[in-house]
Amino acid sequence: MRGLHFGPMPAHPEDPEHAHGAAVRVPIALGERSYEILIGPAVLDDPAAYAGLPRAQAALVVSNPTVAALHGARLHARLAPLYPQVLHLDLTEGEQHKDWASLDLIFDRLLATGCDRRTTLWALGGGVVGDITGFAAACYMRGVPFVQVPTTLLAQVDSSVGGKTAINHPRGKNMIGAFYQPQRVLADLSVLATLPARELAAGLAEVIKYGPIADAAFLDWVEARLDALLAREPAALAHAVRRSCELKAAVVGADEREGGLRAILNFGHTFGHAIEAALGYGRWLHGEAVGCGMVMAADLSARLGLVPAAFVERLRRLVARAGLPVLAPRAIGEARWLELMGVDKKAEGGELRFVLIEAPGRAVVRGAPAAAVRATIAACSG
Amino acid sequence: MRGLHFGPMPAHPEDPEHAHGAAVRVPIALGERSYEILIGPAVLDDPAAYAGLPRAQAALVVSNPTVAALHGARLHARLAPLYPQVLHLDLTEGEQHKDWASLDLIFDRLLATGCDRRTTLWALGGGVVGDITGFAAACYMRGVPFVQVPTTLLAQVDSSVGGKTAINHPRGKNMIGAFYQPQRVLADLSVLATLPARELAAGLAEVIKYGPIADAAFLDWVEARLDALLAREPAALAHAVRRSCELKAAVVGADEREGGLRAILNFGHTFGHAIEAALGYGRWLHGEAVGCGMVMAADLSARLGLVPAAFVERLRRLVARAGLPVLAPRAIGEARWLELMGVDKKAEGGELRFVLIEAPGRAVVRGAPAAAVRATIAACSG
Repeated sequence: MRGLHFGPMPAHPEDPEHAHGAAVRVPIALGERSYEILIGPAVLDDPAAYAGLPRAQAALVVSNPTVAALHGARLHARLAPLYPQVLHLDLTEGEQHKDWASLDLIFDRLLATGCDRRTTLWALGGGVVGDITGFAAACYMRGVPFVQVPTTLLAQVDSSVGGKTAINHPRGKNMIGAFYQPQRVLADLSVLATLPARELAAGLAEVIKYGPIADAAFLDWVEARLDALLAREPAALAHAVRRSCELKAAVVGADEREGGLRAILNFGHTFGHAIEAALGYGRWLHGEAVGCGMVMAADLSARLGLVPAAFVERLRRLVARAGLPVLAPRAIGEARWLELMGVDKKAEGGELRFVLIEAPGRAVVRGAPAAAVRATIAACSG
Repeated sequence: MRGLHFGPMPAHPEDPEHAHGAAVRVPIALGERSYEILIGPAVLDDPAAYAGLPRAQAALVVSNPTVAALHGARLHARLAPLYPQVLHLDLTEGEQHKDWASLDLIFDRLLATGCDRRTTLWALGGGVVGDITGFAAACYMRGVPFVQVPTTLLAQVDSSVGGKTAINHPRGKNMIGAFYQPQRVLADLSVLATLPARELAAGLAEVIKYGPIADAAFLDWVEARLDALLAREPAALAHAVRRSCELKAAVVGADEREGGLRAILNFGHTFGHAIEAALGYGRWLHGEAVGCGMVMAADLSARLGLVPAAFVERLRRLVARAGLPVLAPRAIGEARWLELMGVDKKAEGGELRFVLIEAPGRAVVRGAPAAAVRATIAACSG
C-alpha cells in the first residue's frame, strides 16, 4: 500500500491572544454535517459560543458526578436562557460503565420527560461521557442534535473530530456505535486546570501522535513547548488543541467513514489496544497505552528500514518527558501479545497490519513480518 | 403549510412478464447510499440477484423460526457459495421482542464468532426482523453491510425503502434506531404464498396508502385489481410492490431524514398508532390500524372541506374490501384518543398535526381543530 499522507497544511504560529479570551474556531467540513470546534480559555462562559444552535424545548446535559460538580453550574447558567427545560443526568464514572445500562439511563430519562426529536443532548465530560452521549443522540428517535463539551485534553484533541460514538460490549470495546457528528464542540481550556496530571499526560499522547503521522513541524513545536503544555499554559494548550483538531479534521475530511487514510490515526493503537486488553481495561489509561504503542510502532518502523533508529529515540524521549510509559509490561508475554493483536478488530481477513512511520509527518499502513513484530515486543518490554 | 406533493411520475402498465420470472429493478437514488430493490416471483433463487454485493468472510442470516423453516434453506443455498461462513440466528417472533435483548443476541453472535466490519447481515423476515437486523447492522462496529429479504407484503412495500431501523423501548415504539440503508432488497413474491391472509391484508393497507397521498392513477389501479391482489396473482403483486416502492422512493429521495415531505407517508398513522397503543401493541396488526386510520384521516379531511364525502366512502369501501377494519374500537373513548395522539412522537412543540388528503394523489400536513378530530373519532368508532 502506498504511503497514506496528504499535502502541506497551513500552519499557524502559537498565538499569545489565546491566553486572553479570544476563541479560535476550527471548521470541520463534512458537507451538511459540518460543524465548528470553538477553542479558548473561557468558551463555556461566552454567550457567543451558544449562538445559532438548533432551538428545542429541552436540553439534557449528560455528565458524571465529578465533572458536573466542577463545571455543571457554568454550563447550566448558559443553557437555562436557551431552553425552557434543562435536564441533567450524571452517569457513573469509568470505562466499565460505557455500556448499554448507561445508554438506557439516557433513553429512559428522555422518554420519561417527553423529550421529542428536537431535544439537544449536551455531553459534559471526557471520552466516556462523550462516546455514550453521542451514541444516545445518534439513536434517540433515530437522531437528535448534540453538542460536545470535552473536559479532558484527550477528548478535546481526539473525540472532538471524527464523529465516532460507541458503547462497549462485554465481548469487546467500542463494538456498538455510530458515526454521528455533533452540532458544535466547545473546547474550554480552563477546565483542563482541574484535570489530574495523569490524565493530562494521557491527552498529550494523542497530541504527540499528530506530528509523526501528519506534520513534522508540529512535532518540532510539541518538543519545544512540552514544558509549557505540562504547565498548562493556555496559549500552548490552545495551539496544541487547535493544531491536533486541524490535522485530525484534514484526515477525517478525506475519509469520514474509515475507508483508508483515516487508519493513520490509529498510530500506536494496535500495540496500545493489546496492552490495554492484556492488563484489563482501566489499568493503564488509553493515552498511556497509546504513548507506549507509538514508541513500539516507531521501533517496528525502524526494524523495517523505514526510519533511522534516531527517530525512535527521539519519539521515546518525547513520550517519556510527557510522563507516559515507554516500556510495555514484560508480564504480557509474546504469545498473548500476538493473540491480542490478531483478534484486534482492525485485523481484517486475518492480515496483521500496522500504522508505521516513513518519515516525520508521513505514515504508511502496511503488513509486517511476525519476526519483526516479535523483535519489537522483546525490545520494548521491561 | 402548503400541500406536500410532487409532480407526475412515469407510470408502468402492469406487466404480465412479472408472472414468469423476470425481476424488476427499482433503483433507490440516495447518492453514495443508493441501492436497488429486486422484485420478482423467484428472486431468491436467482444467482444474478446476489451479484456485486460486498465480499466478506462471513454472513449472518437473522430470521425467526417460522420464516427460517419456510425460506431459510433457499437463501442458505445461494449464500453458501458466496461466503466462507454463513451463520444463522432465529429471533423469537413478535413485536414485543423487538427490543434490546434481541439486538444483543445479534451482537453476541457476531462477536462470539469473530465477525469483522465487513460481515454482511441478511434480514430474512417481516418488519420486526428487518428493523432489528438493520439497526444491528447500523451499530455493529459502527456499521456493516446488510441486505433485506422482506417476507411479508408490508415489509416489501414499506420497509424496503426509507432506511428506517429501530427497536422498541419499554416507554415507546421505535424510539431507539437509525436511518441506515441496505445494500440491496430482494422482494421475492413467491414467499407471499405462505403469508397468512390477515398479514396480506395488513400489507395491502400500505399499498392502498400510496394512491391517496401520491398517485391517483395507482388508486384507480388498486381498486380495479384488488381481487387479483387478494388472490396473490404474481403480476398484480409485482406491480403493487413496484409502484409502492417507486412512490415511497420518490418521497424519501426528496427527504431522506424526515424533514417535511416524508411526513405524508404517515397518512393514517396518527390515528393508527393511537389505536395500536390503546389496544396494546399486537392486538391489531400495524396494517389493520393504518387501514382504519386512513379512513379516519379521510373523514377528517372531508370535515375540513378538503375532499368530498364521496372520497371518504370510496376509501372506506376499498379498505373494507381488502379485509381491513374501518371502525375503531368504541371502547377507546374520546379522552384516551386525544391523550394518545397528543403524546405521539410526531406531536412536536405540542401542536397536533395530521396528514390529510386534498385530492386523490395529493396530501397535505396541517393542524386540525379539536372539535373536528372529536367528530371524526365519534363517526369512525363502532
